[in-house]
Amino acid sequence: MLSRLAHLISVAKGELPADLVLTNARVVNVFTGEVEPGDVAIYQDRIAGVGRYHRAKRVLDLAGKYLAPGLINGHTHIESSMLDIGQYARAVVPRGTSAVVTDLHEIANVCGLEGIRYVLSCARRLPLELFLMAPSCVPATTHLETSGASLGLEDIRQVLRWKECIGLGEVMNFPGVLSGDKAVLGKINLARGKVVDGHAPGVRGKDINAYIAAGIYSDHESVSLDEAREKLRQGMYVMIREGSSEKNLDALLPLVTDKTYKRCLFVVDDRSCVDLLGDGDIDAVVRKAIRRGLDPVRAIQMATINTAERFRLDRLGAVAPGYIANLIVIGDLSKLKIEMVFYRGRLVAREGKPLFPSYQPGGKRLTDTVNVKTFAIEKLTLSASGETEPVIEIVPGQIITKKRVEKVEVVGGVIVPDISRDILKLVVVERHKAMGNIGLGLVKGFGLKRGALASTIAHDSHNIVAVGTNDEDIFTAIKEIERLGGGLVIAVSGRVLASLALPIAGLLSDEPLEVVVSKLEKLEQLAMDLGTTLPSPFATLSFLALPVIPELRLTDLGLVDVNAFKLIRRFVPVDESG
Amino acid sequence: MLSRLAHLISVAKGELPADLVLTNARVVNVFTGEVEPGDVAIYQDRIAGVGRYHRAKRVLDLAGKYLAPGLINGHTHIESSMLDIGQYARAVVPRGTSAVVTDLHEIANVCGLEGIRYVLSCARRLPLELFLMAPSCVPATTHLETSGASLGLEDIRQVLRWKECIGLGEVMNFPGVLSGDKAVLGKINLARGKVVDGHAPGVRGKDINAYIAAGIYSDHESVSLDEAREKLRQGMYVMIREGSSEKNLDALLPLVTDKTYKRCLFVVDDRSCVDLLGDGDIDAVVRKAIRRGLDPVRAIQMATINTAERFRLDRLGAVAPGYIANLIVIGDLSKLKIEMVFYRGRLVAREGKPLFPSYQPGGKRLTDTVNVKTFAIEKLTLSASGETEPVIEIVPGQIITKKRVEKVEVVGGVIVPDISRDILKLVVVERHKAMGNIGLGLVKGFGLKRGALASTIAHDSHNIVAVGTNDEDIFTAIKEIERLGGGLVIAVSGRVLASLALPIAGLLSDEPLEVVVSKLEKLEQLAMDLGTTLPSPFATLSFLALPVIPELRLTDLGLVDVNAFKLIRRFVPVDESG
Repeated sequence: MLSRLAHLISVAKGELPADLVLTNARVVNVFTGEVEPGDVAIYQDRIAGVGRYHRAKRVLDLAGKYLAPGLINGHTHIESSMLDIGQYARAVVPRGTSAVVTDLHEIANVCGLEGIRYVLSCARRLPLELFLMAPSCVPATTHLETSGASLGLEDIRQVLRWKECIGLGEVMNFPGVLSGDKAVLGKINLARGKVVDGHAPGVRGKDINAYIAAGIYSDHESVSLDEAREKLRQGMYVMIREGSSEKNLDALLPLVTDKTYKRCLFVVDDRSCVDLLGDGDIDAVVRKAIRRGLDPVRAIQMATINTAERFRLDRLGAVAPGYIANLIVIGDLSKLKIEMVFYRGRLVAREGKPLFPSYQPGGKRLTDTVNVKTFAIEKLTLSASGETEPVIEIVPGQIITKKRVEKVEVVGGVIVPDISRDILKLVVVERHKAMGNIGLGLVKGFGLKRGALASTIAHDSHNIVAVGTNDEDIFTAIKEIERLGGGLVIAVSGRVLASLALPIAGLLSDEPLEVVVSKLEKLEQLAMDLGTTLPSPFATLSFLALPVIPELRLTDLGLVDVNAFKLIRRFVPVDESG
Repeated sequence: MLSRLAHLISVAKGELPADLVLTNARVVNVFTGEVEPGDVAIYQDRIAGVGRYHRAKRVLDLAGKYLAPGLINGHTHIESSMLDIGQYARAVVPRGTSAVVTDLHEIANVCGLEGIRYVLSCARRLPLELFLMAPSCVPATTHLETSGASLGLEDIRQVLRWKECIGLGEVMNFPGVLSGDKAVLGKINLARGKVVDGHAPGVRGKDINAYIAAGIYSDHESVSLDEAREKLRQGMYVMIREGSSEKNLDALLPLVTDKTYKRCLFVVDDRSCVDLLGDGDIDAVVRKAIRRGLDPVRAIQMATINTAERFRLDRLGAVAPGYIANLIVIGDLSKLKIEMVFYRGRLVAREGKPLFPSYQPGGKRLTDTVNVKTFAIEKLTLSASGETEPVIEIVPGQIITKKRVEKVEVVGGVIVPDISRDILKLVVVERHKAMGNIGLGLVKGFGLKRGALASTIAHDSHNIVAVGTNDEDIFTAIKEIERLGGGLVIAVSGRVLASLALPIAGLLSDEPLEVVVSKLEKLEQLAMDLGTTLPSPFATLSFLALPVIPELRLTDLGLVDVNAFKLIRRFVPVDESG
């Protein structure tokens, strides 16, 4: 009996037949940046050889189509799709995504290690490599918000030992790194010898030196060319992010040159199910880069081999002997039309359609995670604190916000939304441990003229976040979320107009991809009808509670000045904030 | 008390003083391929920051000189210098070598694991990072020669666990890989998750697919551009080798383009002490590449970051925050004049002179390794086997040989050297276990007109190899080697004219660098006086017994046709050959 490796060698030599030979391919060679004609011989889950092969149990003539490595998404939060992982795979695998690097910190913030284990165990049955980065910042901050779970040093130590785990996930607590916080540095120390991923929006100069010196060599938060160039110069891999809300490709693409491209890679960070189904996953980023003039082979390199090198993913990201046979067949290279997807040697998608079963996990699905302490509508009253008030200003197409100070409308000492100036009320309600924390604030740029939106997706602690033109609609939407056990809701004039239930951790639907997309599209259309001009209002809403991205945020504890990294208006007494 | 990491971060932020700041540097940035003005702050053994720094316990103004990462030699056999490791460091550290990747398979072939441990323990005190690759082929072949030691699966398993060990060293037994040899594949399997380095001279087409499919993603044996290009295309890192005997730079440099350079790196493989002292180590390769027109920064990348990436050497190969402070100061970049060398933040060489003590190991030094079974001169008689005889032909500047079949001079049924046609006698005498094996053959291209050369450096088994114009001188030289306990000897007319004792394993001198160089130069001059036209006759001699490089070789067992991978003339009966 030949060993598996000996068999592979024998197939490569042309002595034993391959399981599958893809003939007459134009092979995208990520090592030379060229396209070469050839056949690819596959044995079991591996590529045996690239060249002239014909002996095989099965031969598939690609008739001159392009053959490239399966795409690798170097940084994504799967949970942002609102899809259970089986449905997520149905969305991204036909798009050519063969591997994702993810830290699952959304579900971890709600359910801790149990949440991570749930996704990993479902993912094992799917035609998608899942590489876990141990979530370094659960919760994102220790003193600015309330999360459902927290992962301490011992949890991180445990996760780093799991076979799926390849490193430490985005270290969002950059102020903690810069101040030498023991807990943060302790986690970095645990990850020694593995990859540590970064998250350092706007960190420049000596601060970025310090952040990198801690051992953090990649970042996806650059929004300007200058920022990205500085990070690359100082030794970071620059992840060019093009997500549903965060679009940095146009700004950062000029960074990619003959001299720098190997240190650049594409990621999506957060991408909605609507975008996944309609536009694509990491393939959409590659496609857009090509449209912007990037050489197609280079664009593919930045979503395959470069990512594999950054994360030290063995045998992934190239069409070469010994590599895992994750492959995509492309009709028109410049349009990146993906016609077939092979995962570990098996055809798993064709013409955009998945060919694998939609796996449904049995057992507990992490439902019943929404626990809100009963409160009266009066708790939403926001008292004026002075002449002016801090207002969170949305920056279209970005997830950073601006801190503005505005004169606001006050009636009897109470601040009321000012629809004419687009200053709306923002509410965050703690929903994990029924603590009763409610943070109140103001937001500019949402554009709603009527009604309210609420959601249990609120990075990263995933409390209930709501925005509205009046307290009644905000209250109604929050109540409906409680009833659904998590989800997205729109209420107008005291009535629920539309919703999407997210019963799994309050983050994920248990319905099929197409249903989720349809419900979300309906919600977004409705929000538009109510006046918002934002393309993805629920995504934008979900980031307004994230106290690690500048400049101003609202959590269940109060208003956070991110640059100062502290609460500037506190709604919960210190002794109750956990 | 701040932790070390917190302290580093604080220095990077400019809050605490650095231990050392190098100001006014022109920093060679291997990430961007550019040179940028700046200061570099160092804390303990690390770079804290690159930018504008001045707070420091010590400031050194570089006055516009270039600052580059310390060089990394990605593949070298330290033993080829004939220097004990302390003297080797005196030779290479002032040349800018800060790290070497080595498998120590020469000393392992003589002394096994004890030999490797000996070098590692000495190296710990030296200003040089030593990364060990577990020697995969000790002996190089199992049936074609006799070595002093052999490393089996259990030995490899053990070495792979040592902290210095980063992977499996050059898998020279490529026929074993291609035939699915269990022992070879077993070693490769053990190295899973680590780097496996290759050695596949002339392996092309489906065979190179098969070799790579085994998991071997680098190679230093390409001698032609076509061969190197094929290997690069198929997924290998191409190591461009420029050693004392093996000079491939001119042939392979055209491979290096904007699209491919990240997959190319420089190595020296084998470099003599004469070359190390006179011309340099990996710096000499970089320098030569620059002379040939390669951009100096790119040339430096190919001896720093590219090598670090190939071997996954964390925090080495760049001037960037968090990186180990191995740095070189260069006056003239295009001439690569190295003026200062810093190792882990300490100045260890200046103007080519080492500033560190010459470490002398105590205890046992692996002497008394030459054990030859007493034999009479008649044992050197080579009988004619037919009309013609196979002759090993030397290819100048290469370590491959050609197999020629020649009519030879026969006197009374005995072949005699034919000086007029430069066909000399080659002898290999087993010297580890006094087994009495003596292989006899003929070599063309040595050019000796009188006398004989003998050596205990004979890759990789390191038996005694001798070449000569007559049996008496060959015999005299071999006897002297026995007396010295190993070394290099030249004998003429029955007298020893010059020698260099190599008492450590029969491979390394115990004398200072300058003495070894002087003695070796004397030997080489003498060899030239005796007629040889080879620039490094002892180096060339040392490769004539290496049965893993095509085409024809001689071992203690007999003549080896390397392409057929078998003995074509055997001098030792099968049952005696071990």
